[in-house]
Amino acid sequence: MARIVMKFGGTSVADLDRIRNVADRVAAVAQDGNEVAVVVSAMAGTTNRLVGWTQEMSVVHDAREYDAVVSSGEQVTVGLLAMALQQRGISARSWLGWQLPLRTDGVHGAARIENIDGSELIRRFAEGQVAVVAGFQGVGPDNRITTLGRGGSDTTAVAIAAAVKADRCDIYTDVDGVYTADPRVVTGARKIDKITYEEMLELASQGAKVLQTRSVELAMNHRVRVQVRSSFADAPGTLVVDEEEILEQAVVSGITYTSDEAKVTLLNVADRPGVAAAVFGPLAEANVNVDMIVQSASADGKRTDITFTVARADLQRVEQVLEALRQDVGFEQMVADGDVVKVSVIGVGMRSHAGVAQQMFQALADRTINIQAISTSEIKISVLIAAEYTELAVRTLHAAYGLDAA
Amino acid sequence: MARIVMKFGGTSVADLDRIRNVADRVAAVAQDGNEVAVVVSAMAGTTNRLVGWTQEMSVVHDAREYDAVVSSGEQVTVGLLAMALQQRGISARSWLGWQLPLRTDGVHGAARIENIDGSELIRRFAEGQVAVVAGFQGVGPDNRITTLGRGGSDTTAVAIAAAVKADRCDIYTDVDGVYTADPRVVTGARKIDKITYEEMLELASQGAKVLQTRSVELAMNHRVRVQVRSSFADAPGTLVVDEEEILEQAVVSGITYTSDEAKVTLLNVADRPGVAAAVFGPLAEANVNVDMIVQSASADGKRTDITFTVARADLQRVEQVLEALRQDVGFEQMVADGDVVKVSVIGVGMRSHAGVAQQMFQALADRTINIQAISTSEIKISVLIAAEYTELAVRTLHAAYGLDAA
Repeated sequence: MARIVMKFGGTSVADLDRIRNVADRVAAVAQDGNEVAVVVSAMAGTTNRLVGWTQEMSVVHDAREYDAVVSSGEQVTVGLLAMALQQRGISARSWLGWQLPLRTDGVHGAARIENIDGSELIRRFAEGQVAVVAGFQGVGPDNRITTLGRGGSDTTAVAIAAAVKADRCDIYTDVDGVYTADPRVVTGARKIDKITYEEMLELASQGAKVLQTRSVELAMNHRVRVQVRSSFADAPGTLVVDEEEILEQAVVSGITYTSDEAKVTLLNVADRPGVAAAVFGPLAEANVNVDMIVQSASADGKRTDITFTVARADLQRVEQVLEALRQDVGFEQMVADGDVVKVSVIGVGMRSHAGVAQQMFQALADRTINIQAISTSEIKISVLIAAEYTELAVRTLHAAYGLDAA
Repeated sequence: MARIVMKFGGTSVADLDRIRNVADRVAAVAQDGNEVAVVVSAMAGTTNRLVGWTQEMSVVHDAREYDAVVSSGEQVTVGLLAMALQQRGISARSWLGWQLPLRTDGVHGAARIENIDGSELIRRFAEGQVAVVAGFQGVGPDNRITTLGRGGSDTTAVAIAAAVKADRCDIYTDVDGVYTADPRVVTGARKIDKITYEEMLELASQGAKVLQTRSVELAMNHRVRVQVRSSFADAPGTLVVDEEEILEQAVVSGITYTSDEAKVTLLNVADRPGVAAAVFGPLAEANVNVDMIVQSASADGKRTDITFTVARADLQRVEQVLEALRQDVGFEQMVADGDVVKVSVIGVGMRSHAGVAQQMFQALADRTINIQAISTSEIKISVLIAAEYTELAVRTLHAAYGLDAA
């Protein structure tokens, strides 16, 4: 017997037949003697339609009314799923955010969960009742409905799991787990059985769109064991857990890449104290997120070059901001390049292994792939390269770190 | 300055353009300096789609889950309408049943309103805020969403009007008021300016589908002045008010008819005490509503005939029930006739005027229309006639009571 939270996204509840399939899966887990809470999203397409209506009604609209409108989709799926479970002989009831209550802050449209009292759910688990919980929604301090932002149902599921002290939170999705690399790029990519929260966080923020970043943070903070698994197959997926739970830690767990990057280089910048602040301060004010930064050593101590990366969507804004600063900062020329990708190597094992970065640089050099910028964190090394080398670089690194399937 | 509740049904909020039209009407009333609460239904078609899903999911389903699903439609329209009002410079916020709260009993699917605290709405009226209230929904004693049954938004509007002590409750609909007769039948039918609650109740239960019966009862009990008016035109409609508000009371206010009747005659019934109970008891148990009853005087004190009317939809059930009773009751033959209509003359003035019934019988006799059964209430006389005479009878009576337009 275990206490399990199951989460199904919009595609898994897209129509009545799929809701029946979800009911079958939930019923099987409940009939095995487990205590179950199931979190569902709105039917696929519903939230987009509702969001579209709010935008058509008023471009700048009251976020509180937006939340009232878009949260209605989950209300439909929880009711229908509870009915389907009851028809299968399972005691079940639906829970809306305000009924639990799932309390959030008052930031409508992107609220953060503050508190969930799990005691009533736990009491009903003991009576054999399955809780069918509406994802994505909560209630704010003003007693109005709040929503958690896109992908918020993952966060709901993890928060419910934390509140009821679940043994596991299973996120059912259209992939069957987390892979060592994008299987469309690397044929030898393998499903990872266990991965740490930290690695999953890096993967999520590096474009592996399996889990919402915030849900991973929440899982890490509350030590919720999360399993990413397939809605369609029965095989176990990838378990996201604490480092201690993984006995034999691979040095590198996965290779990932993001292609929505752009590189900006300021040539011949006056090399004086405060110049970096003069460039990056105004960019931060303009809400531009700067990622990698490289400032080359100045040959004469007077002029230098500054290179950095931003999201490609922000490139135009960056050019406007910098053009206005040309005199103040005193750079000669600005060169923008959208034809770059960031390739990252991720693994908590690199903390205790020297030479992981060197291995990366050497492998890329052997393929004559030029590295344009480098950034590192404790468990990640990222390099910026020309976009045309993306696949070659990912495959090369996947092999270099011994990740290819035997 | 007045305090006004406005109610718009599903056809009036069927799409974004119509919601904008509703916003224009509400904004105009608010900008005239009135305090406004507006009650809306779900977009036309939405509730039917949701109800269909619940039926497809499970024929016999948990009414609490049904309520969670079908109440989601109003949540969408209140949010969108509040946005549209804000865009027009009107302060507005949406209110769901559980937020007001609009408390009901626990009869899910057909709940009755028990209590609404209007003080928060009144406080916000004083600040110039329009309340946009979800019709059809409330919250039960178990903190779960309840719905009020079909047409429940009329009842919500009247209940809100009572709670905030509104000067008027305007029900916007696809007709421009209540008529002295069905204008499709009687070309000279006139719109009634003022009608009493009692008359409106009789009209509503006699097939004039303008207001839900329950909303009229509620209006009568709380003395809420209700106006039935057109969503599309600006002219005043029909005001439903207390008798005292109508100075010159017409003897007869309107002529109505219902064609979903069936007549059943039991021939040669043993005329002994308890025979009526023996017939109508089992019918009541079978949930059959019996309307008119005629028992002819027995010639010999031994055998008699009993005639009564039921809804035509119940006819088959009635035949089954009675066939099983043939021996016990001791009737010789049962004759059913679905080819009948009930024509009614309605008016509070007939309380104080003698001869109203006689005038009806004479007018029909002049046209050689045979009366098959009669029933009366304090303010209504109904006769059962052959269906082929429907239009002739209604027109004849409309003229006989001087209702034709000059």
